[in-house]
Amino acid sequence: MYKVDINCDMGESFGAYRMGTDEEILPFVTSANIACGFHAGDPSIMKKTVAAALAHGVAIGAHPGLPDLAGFGRRNLDLTSEEAYDIVVYQVGALYGFVKAAGGKMQHVKPHGALYNMAAKNRALSDAIAQAVYDVNPELVLFGLSGSELVKAGQAVGLRIAHEVFADRTYQVDGSLTSRREANALITDTNEAVEQVIRMVKEGAVRSVQGQDVAIQADTVCIHGDGAHALAFARSIRQLLGQADIAVQSII
Amino acid sequence: MYKVDINCDMGESFGAYRMGTDEEILPFVTSANIACGFHAGDPSIMKKTVAAALAHGVAIGAHPGLPDLAGFGRRNLDLTSEEAYDIVVYQVGALYGFVKAAGGKMQHVKPHGALYNMAAKNRALSDAIAQAVYDVNPELVLFGLSGSELVKAGQAVGLRIAHEVFADRTYQVDGSLTSRREANALITDTNEAVEQVIRMVKEGAVRSVQGQDVAIQADTVCIHGDGAHALAFARSIRQLLGQADIAVQSII
Amino acid sequence: MYKVDINCDMGESFGAYRMGTDEEILPFVTSANIACGFHAGDPSIMKKTVAAALAHGVAIGAHPGLPDLAGFGRRNLDLTSEEAYDIVVYQVGALYGFVKAAGGKMQHVKPHGALYNMAAKNRALSDAIAQAVYDVNPELVLFGLSGSELVKAGQAVGLRIAHEVFADRTYQVDGSLTSRREANALITDTNEAVEQVIRMVKEGAVRSVQGQDVAIQADTVCIHGDGAHALAFARSIRQLLGQADIAVQSII
Amino acid sequence: MYKVDINCDMGESFGAYRMGTDEEILPFVTSANIACGFHAGDPSIMKKTVAAALAHGVAIGAHPGLPDLAGFGRRNLDLTSEEAYDIVVYQVGALYGFVKAAGGKMQHVKPHGALYNMAAKNRALSDAIAQAVYDVNPELVLFGLSGSELVKAGQAVGLRIAHEVFADRTYQVDGSLTSRREANALITDTNEAVEQVIRMVKEGAVRSVQGQDVAIQADTVCIHGDGAHALAFARSIRQLLGQADIAVQSII
Repeated sequence: MYKVDINCDMGESFGAYRMGTDEEILPFVTSANIACGFHAGDPSIMKKTVAAALAHGVAIGAHPGLPDLAGFGRRNLDLTSEEAYDIVVYQVGALYGFVKAAGGKMQHVKPHGALYNMAAKNRALSDAIAQAVYDVNPELVLFGLSGSELVKAGQAVGLRIAHEVFADRTYQVDGSLTSRREANALITDTNEAVEQVIRMVKEGAVRSVQGQDVAIQADTVCIHGDGAHALAFARSIRQLLGQADIAVQSII
Repeated sequence: MYKVDINCDMGESFGAYRMGTDEEILPFVTSANIACGFHAGDPSIMKKTVAAALAHGVAIGAHPGLPDLAGFGRRNLDLTSEEAYDIVVYQVGALYGFVKAAGGKMQHVKPHGALYNMAAKNRALSDAIAQAVYDVNPELVLFGLSGSELVKAGQAVGLRIAHEVFADRTYQVDGSLTSRREANALITDTNEAVEQVIRMVKEGAVRSVQGQDVAIQADTVCIHGDGAHALAFARSIRQLLGQADIAVQSII
Repeated sequence: MYKVDINCDMGESFGAYRMGTDEEILPFVTSANIACGFHAGDPSIMKKTVAAALAHGVAIGAHPGLPDLAGFGRRNLDLTSEEAYDIVVYQVGALYGFVKAAGGKMQHVKPHGALYNMAAKNRALSDAIAQAVYDVNPELVLFGLSGSELVKAGQAVGLRIAHEVFADRTYQVDGSLTSRREANALITDTNEAVEQVIRMVKEGAVRSVQGQDVAIQADTVCIHGDGAHALAFARSIRQLLGQADIAVQSII
Repeated sequence: MYKVDINCDMGESFGAYRMGTDEEILPFVTSANIACGFHAGDPSIMKKTVAAALAHGVAIGAHPGLPDLAGFGRRNLDLTSEEAYDIVVYQVGALYGFVKAAGGKMQHVKPHGALYNMAAKNRALSDAIAQAVYDVNPELVLFGLSGSELVKAGQAVGLRIAHEVFADRTYQVDGSLTSRREANALITDTNEAVEQVIRMVKEGAVRSVQGQDVAIQADTVCIHGDGAHALAFARSIRQLLGQADIAVQSII
């Protein structure tokens, strides 16, 4: 039977600031990427988010980001690979504290934002991130953009990896995501977005904006926890994948 | 045979800023309290300090502090007990990441600065800190001011605890440290300071500034890693304790 | 004719995080207290908030807070008076940059949260804050809790001051606010809250929770920019004060 | 008569961390670039540094950097031009607070580290920085790498600008600095370094590493405040420039 994981970024509130609709979205996902205090999140939010994920039976992952709260970790920062290793170890360790305190288990690590995007194209950076994850716990699953340098680095270091795809983003003929600066970067129609995921899961292919099919592996699909339609989309994709006989389940 | 641990705060550099003389002081101590990025330290410093401690066979501890880099964690902050729990779990977890990555083992946790001092007198705060340590790893040793609320809280929650004493600080008749605002707070003579420690270890007593003896337990003695005489003092206390037939060894 | 200023905290968003309804509330207030990046706000938010206040003809004030973004500046921090002086000069200066760049003028300074509350009872701290404001610009108006040490310190240093009152808070017989920990701290009925303000403005008195009248000066009334009823309350108080023949206008 | 300004980065300490030898170097320089709390410095350090500069009759400048204390502002960050405008206005304003409180006057603005280097080659970023400086105070002098996009942007917006040269760095035939990654990037011999400056001041030319002369304008020369030989070099360059009949004086 076909299967796929649905992951969502969570725990992105900070102090008095609220972001996302974690409680509402948790019933529809199988993996939670929890912010670790660098680009978003704080210790109190992390504790609450770990507890909420456990309560919903959702697998827990660390979502380490660049040390840039003001930029939400979305601005490229020219850090060294060694610095990347260090901030990943730190953040995965910090989340580990909460997971351990709650009696849970960490499933995966998914870098956030600019760190994720830089790593997708930079093997040295990806090697550092993968090594960091491996060194903290070799049983963790590394989530990376399907076909990216990050998943290659994870495989090379001996980690289990999960190829990540996006429901609401279009793809280029080389398998990369269309830049958000392009007009056709986003898929706004829910059915079209879910159809793309279903085809990626069942056929291992996606139709690029250039019109040609591209091979793609879909182990986990990323959905969003904020925005006006996040909850409705989460409900729909969960339901439609089920109707397509695709089991939605966490990686481990 | 008598024995005592010598601990020292370490890894307090940050980014381009250097503090302390970790490499020089490590040969003379048996436990290192490593800053975890809140009051001092950063991921890269933590990694290096963990490696240095392991290389010297010095036991590793987390040294969590208040989120106040500008104040070096020395300014009281009116955080809730729950917030204290959260920041301790976070910081102990973060250091755990580096200890695990380096193939080491964490021995203890010692709160830093204002967090340590506030906890010494506040049982609710101490309970939260002790619970945080226990929840991350019940085998960790909690370091607290000898006779303080923090060691009582550690015992109550089931942690192994270490009573900490100070070589270069005078004591009040109630067993508390003389405030640094008092003229007679510090012992500047090395021999006098070490004699105080030897008596604490061998006799379980210290002469208070009021002239009366006070019962005190000395499991670990804190020495300083910066200041003009830090290194000379470290060398002296290590040598003099040896001459007094007191074994200097880590807690575990 | 009677008159009063209505002030509201603004510019409390940070990076990707939104807080408050500045644009909606601006039409109803006459003074905006703009966060300066320590407890809330960031450079981009400050610029936008200054522009919005100028566009609505609302007087601009700096709203300096403690360096505690995680705690939103609401947790007491044991900083020295000199440190308080320094962080106030810094934040007022930073906002001055945006006001100057926008061709505007700064009217006032109102400390935020724990800094405001600590200063209300601590003359040395208040002296430092008042001196900081005076030193940056002696023509600035200092907003402080009516009758507090802060307004006394402002007067002593030669600043114009504005006694601040709260519409939705009850008062103790000594003129202080009822602690939020008490059940009767808040006035939830809009008419009752506005009636309290009208009486403070017209009669210089407020009925304490103990049942006795207390003398109080009301130069400016603080309303809130977030919460479910913030906008409705802002609309009501503006309208009801007008009906009571109280002119709503900024201090300068 | 020939003249040149000598500038040095200052006020780079932070909290308990010390950096540089400001007090020792101040007698030898004519312009101080004072860190503003983003890449280094804090409000208390800023106040002390402003006071020290005024005491030595050294002209004061703001030294705004990227919001990256951990990286000391030396790591490129992909911020937008609008964000650059905002952080420059903020930091210049913050320093203005201290200058105003001390009864002084601000002479100039010199971006720090990665912000300086990125601006040197990026006109849009430079335009934003120059506009920010102009909007806060059109009488400020903008310091930028001689011949860079930053000085061009400053001229375009109507600011007085100062072309900055480096005594201890070699130049490429296009007038740019040799990358620090190259073996021949630094000039370690004091006399050679000062000779380079003298020729830049008197002849408006520098010998590139390729062997050809390059035209260069030297309004201000940057020297360093830390490092083993900083003080000795400062003393030497000041003396040797005097012997070469070059007046050392601030820009304004």
